[in-house]
Amino acid sequence: MLNIGIIGAGRIGKVHTQSIVNYVRTAKVTAIADPFITDETAAWAEGFGAKISKNYLDIINDPDIDLVLICSSSDTHSQISLEAIAAGKHVFCEKPIDLDVGRIQAVLEALKAKPELKYTVGFNRRFDHNFRAIRNAVESGAIGKVELVKVTSRDPAPPSAEYAARSGGIFMDMTIHDFDMVRYLSGEEVESVFVQPAVLVDPAIGEAGDFDSAVITLKLSSGALAVIDNSRRCAYGYDQRAEVFGSLGSAASRNDASSNVHIATDGGVLAEKPLYFFLERYMQAFATEVTEFIEAVVNDTPVPVDAGAGLAAVLIAIAATKSAKTGLPVKV
Amino acid sequence: MLNIGIIGAGRIGKVHTQSIVNYVRTAKVTAIADPFITDETAAWAEGFGAKISKNYLDIINDPDIDLVLICSSSDTHSQISLEAIAAGKHVFCEKPIDLDVGRIQAVLEALKAKPELKYTVGFNRRFDHNFRAIRNAVESGAIGKVELVKVTSRDPAPPSAEYAARSGGIFMDMTIHDFDMVRYLSGEEVESVFVQPAVLVDPAIGEAGDFDSAVITLKLSSGALAVIDNSRRCAYGYDQRAEVFGSLGSAASRNDASSNVHIATDGGVLAEKPLYFFLERYMQAFATEVTEFIEAVVNDTPVPVDAGAGLAAVLIAIAATKSAKTGLPVKV
Amino acid sequence: MLNIGIIGAGRIGKVHTQSIVNYVRTAKVTAIADPFITDETAAWAEGFGAKISKNYLDIINDPDIDLVLICSSSDTHSQISLEAIAAGKHVFCEKPIDLDVGRIQAVLEALKAKPELKYTVGFNRRFDHNFRAIRNAVESGAIGKVELVKVTSRDPAPPSAEYAARSGGIFMDMTIHDFDMVRYLSGEEVESVFVQPAVLVDPAIGEAGDFDSAVITLKLSSGALAVIDNSRRCAYGYDQRAEVFGSLGSAASRNDASSNVHIATDGGVLAEKPLYFFLERYMQAFATEVTEFIEAVVNDTPVPVDAGAGLAAVLIAIAATKSAKTGLPVKV
Amino acid sequence: MLNIGIIGAGRIGKVHTQSIVNYVRTAKVTAIADPFITDETAAWAEGFGAKISKNYLDIINDPDIDLVLICSSSDTHSQISLEAIAAGKHVFCEKPIDLDVGRIQAVLEALKAKPELKYTVGFNRRFDHNFRAIRNAVESGAIGKVELVKVTSRDPAPPSAEYAARSGGIFMDMTIHDFDMVRYLSGEEVESVFVQPAVLVDPAIGEAGDFDSAVITLKLSSGALAVIDNSRRCAYGYDQRAEVFGSLGSAASRNDASSNVHIATDGGVLAEKPLYFFLERYMQAFATEVTEFIEAVVNDTPVPVDAGAGLAAVLIAIAATKSAKTGLPVKV
Repeated sequence: MLNIGIIGAGRIGKVHTQSIVNYVRTAKVTAIADPFITDETAAWAEGFGAKISKNYLDIINDPDIDLVLICSSSDTHSQISLEAIAAGKHVFCEKPIDLDVGRIQAVLEALKAKPELKYTVGFNRRFDHNFRAIRNAVESGAIGKVELVKVTSRDPAPPSAEYAARSGGIFMDMTIHDFDMVRYLSGEEVESVFVQPAVLVDPAIGEAGDFDSAVITLKLSSGALAVIDNSRRCAYGYDQRAEVFGSLGSAASRNDASSNVHIATDGGVLAEKPLYFFLERYMQAFATEVTEFIEAVVNDTPVPVDAGAGLAAVLIAIAATKSAKTGLPVKV
Repeated sequence: MLNIGIIGAGRIGKVHTQSIVNYVRTAKVTAIADPFITDETAAWAEGFGAKISKNYLDIINDPDIDLVLICSSSDTHSQISLEAIAAGKHVFCEKPIDLDVGRIQAVLEALKAKPELKYTVGFNRRFDHNFRAIRNAVESGAIGKVELVKVTSRDPAPPSAEYAARSGGIFMDMTIHDFDMVRYLSGEEVESVFVQPAVLVDPAIGEAGDFDSAVITLKLSSGALAVIDNSRRCAYGYDQRAEVFGSLGSAASRNDASSNVHIATDGGVLAEKPLYFFLERYMQAFATEVTEFIEAVVNDTPVPVDAGAGLAAVLIAIAATKSAKTGLPVKV
Repeated sequence: MLNIGIIGAGRIGKVHTQSIVNYVRTAKVTAIADPFITDETAAWAEGFGAKISKNYLDIINDPDIDLVLICSSSDTHSQISLEAIAAGKHVFCEKPIDLDVGRIQAVLEALKAKPELKYTVGFNRRFDHNFRAIRNAVESGAIGKVELVKVTSRDPAPPSAEYAARSGGIFMDMTIHDFDMVRYLSGEEVESVFVQPAVLVDPAIGEAGDFDSAVITLKLSSGALAVIDNSRRCAYGYDQRAEVFGSLGSAASRNDASSNVHIATDGGVLAEKPLYFFLERYMQAFATEVTEFIEAVVNDTPVPVDAGAGLAAVLIAIAATKSAKTGLPVKV
Repeated sequence: MLNIGIIGAGRIGKVHTQSIVNYVRTAKVTAIADPFITDETAAWAEGFGAKISKNYLDIINDPDIDLVLICSSSDTHSQISLEAIAAGKHVFCEKPIDLDVGRIQAVLEALKAKPELKYTVGFNRRFDHNFRAIRNAVESGAIGKVELVKVTSRDPAPPSAEYAARSGGIFMDMTIHDFDMVRYLSGEEVESVFVQPAVLVDPAIGEAGDFDSAVITLKLSSGALAVIDNSRRCAYGYDQRAEVFGSLGSAASRNDASSNVHIATDGGVLAEKPLYFFLERYMQAFATEVTEFIEAVVNDTPVPVDAGAGLAAVLIAIAATKSAKTGLPVKV
């Protein structure tokens, strides 16, 4: 039985904890640390027998804990990763590892020194049933050699301009998932990127130096192409689709809704709009993500998403940010 | 070049005429007869060089005419059929040949005596692209041995109670097409029928002795089953679907709309409702129907729908009418 | 905190237990009884702290247990229900309560004497997201007055002829869920039923005196109609669809698949087939079913499905069985 | 009655002629000119009473002809346009008017001097039922202010490298339709374009100096974005889809197939692939295009697509070609 410590008991920390409690029989959450932990959260944690702390070092320093989930604020991810690795713990780190390449590389270096430790970064969409089915179609050869990857990714509502300003920008905060999706679906590296950005949703985001809309073109290592379209606002909810076009055909996914019922009346045929946002759409993916990482630790098999994927997506995001500012294509 | 005479220049007579003018290069419409022909219709007919008459016998007696389309009122179909056959003309007769079995059999007898003549009855739905694709799937063996045929058939709006009263009833007037569809899709004969009728749309139709809604269960010659659901009113337009379920799978069609565009908003994802009624939905089928019959005449090949199909559907309709009245299953 | 005892640790007993362990915070499973309990099951039960027994009376007689889930073999349901009610316990009983109407009525009588007890019967499909969305559309008035309910229900593979023989027959064993669905979707009672049965899948089922295929027509209390089509074999998996047609439109559901990915190649556009069987398709419904019943107990609110629904469905199944044998419509 | 002369009796010339013969009652085709006219074509033309010539000047100089359709080879379009305008004839010109901007402008100048003449360029896709439904959704305000236009446009099979070399390149030959579609759907002008081209289908096309695949990003006059993805090969047929995303939602079209039948078996649920190529997909659009232009001439109303649209698309194609060669975004 693996003992798990959760660092950060915000929304996503709770989602992962609950997944482990519900679905994982080979591990248990024994400790939760959060500087702002509420009484309600404490009561919830006690319900499944976890210790509570306001100091994450209580988890790092707990010799009984085998594995740490880092769900704290983004700017602490690399530092806590380094401390957890130093303490000999397996790490599940929410994305991004860091906005700074040097600090990510420090984590990779630390991991090299401890090959017995497993480390993963939380690219939850790779575990979504639809995107996996596309990836399976690509891997099976059913659609031939990949020629174009298309990713549509639109959030239901924009963040505040303040959030946008300190998030590292739309490409680091939002598109980073889509960059990883392009790598995942194609099985290729990104060589260059061109961004056509726009501020169409909230002028305050533009004033804060960020963008809220973009079309991003990518060139992949084989010469194949990819394109991502992003918006920070989508009136019909969370739009998360992908399509891969190859020499023998294409594989494409649609959005999921809470039912597939169609209501036909004089006004037309009405279906439900997509699930609202990531907690609804990716609930199953979050559970699979954590479950498969723990399985990899228990069975000592390769992790589904390694630290290198975290670095690769950040490098693309940096190139994209530069392209958006210069108006020119940029090599990754 | 085949010369064609049209008897009856109402809505369906015009549809067939226009199909021949537009699409058929091996025949031309040389005469049109209608007792109530309007100036507008006359001008239209002259546009493609057809003679006009108020008396259908002018067509029957015209030695230059090879083929007659009978699009007059239903109660004249069998009589004009007999006269046209006697005059040595090929006949395309709108459904039904007659409501009376004896009179249909007289037409079949007349045809036996003139095997050189082609005769067809207007079951236009057999020529619809969707239903043909189902039939092709059945014939190809893709879904195995047929076990169940399902036909959904709902009109957009009910006829007047007066029409219902003199139409022969819903089973003879409306379901007759669906009975033929069951025979067409399954390639089997109907052995017995049970009707659960209802008056749910217009009480006046009930008062006139007819029904406006029904579920009809059929037993087929192989032991397979079929079910038809009918309504005289459908808020979203003309509902025309079929599904065949077999030992290896199923083949099912949906409705057609004027575009496949989906509009996604906060209120849901809205698609267009089905095409309104038979002129919209079956326009392509009407053209194919007439074209293929003329081809069969020109090439002396079997007709796609023979007079026997007209008799078979009427026999089922008679059994269905009896079942609706007695509340019991009836052998065909 | 409610204490729950599980009687019967077979497949469905385990599904319910796991749902409670995973999702329900106001109750815990404290005891499990099964005469054939395995070591593996015992270990699993101990994992969440439940006591094990081979005798269900250990649960009935345990004063600490508030609620009993009856997941034992069907022929024990009514007897154990009576014992549990006598012992003052709330009861979740898998369907059917009994095949015998008198024994079901005995349970209803026992419940009348103890109005403080909650009792439900396991019609899990009422908790399926798709069927609920149809029911919501009906209740909201979006499709007007109900005129026709259509239920398609086909199992992926037939049971053995032995099972068929002792199951009470297809209508009691399989269609009973569909009868309940008609009542649920329409909000109406069934007045009469006509069955057109067939043996198309496995002759041995016919030799055992049962059927493996059927079309069932129902007349509802308002005069509206319903139709169910059943097969014990479906090559593409579990086919579970419904459609309600009303004066203002229709609401229809499709099957669910494990992804919505479409693969387009030279051979066509291929989507996944439906989820294989009830454990896959109704996993979410099973969890909601148990959760909502426990909520009703905790909050003392009406149960989503009461014992009367269990009786009503059996009465329809009895009439259907009679119709299949006589070839005549039968009043319920 | 308008008299029409057809210049060029190749594939598209025949399509337009047939549409006029079949559907247009206010005009007739009285003359056809083609230097390579076959006996078969001549017989066909005589069938509806048209004169035949090998010299297009016979049409230009025919005072009885009111309207000319220019369906000859692309490099003759502007010259014949100028001659037809000088002769006082209305002109339907297949796209492109010319590859050279100066020559297009000469046509526009000539038209300014004869405001009584109608001139259109054959952007047939504007008349497609699906794209029109998207445009209607945009115009109605249903999806709010346009933020992104997405066009997917893939041909079933690549042209020969020789064709590619003399066609003006993929952007002038193929994408030109998509550039027009962006203008049509958005109602906006294109300000700049960035092309990420690739040679993924046929190396010979690359050796000829052209590309066979591309992702093209466009910035529109309002600041909105557009993106086009192209391929010269598509294993499942002609892929022609569009989607417009706005502040209140999106409108998206799918491909059309020859039926909507779904065949479900153990292997999945199979639908038909899209219609094969432009003659199949746009047959209805071709008919509507010619019909609406003739209506505009007869009724003296604005033409649906004016010569300016022909110039605008070519200007974007020129910028796109430059972007593909320089690897930089280019202002239009």
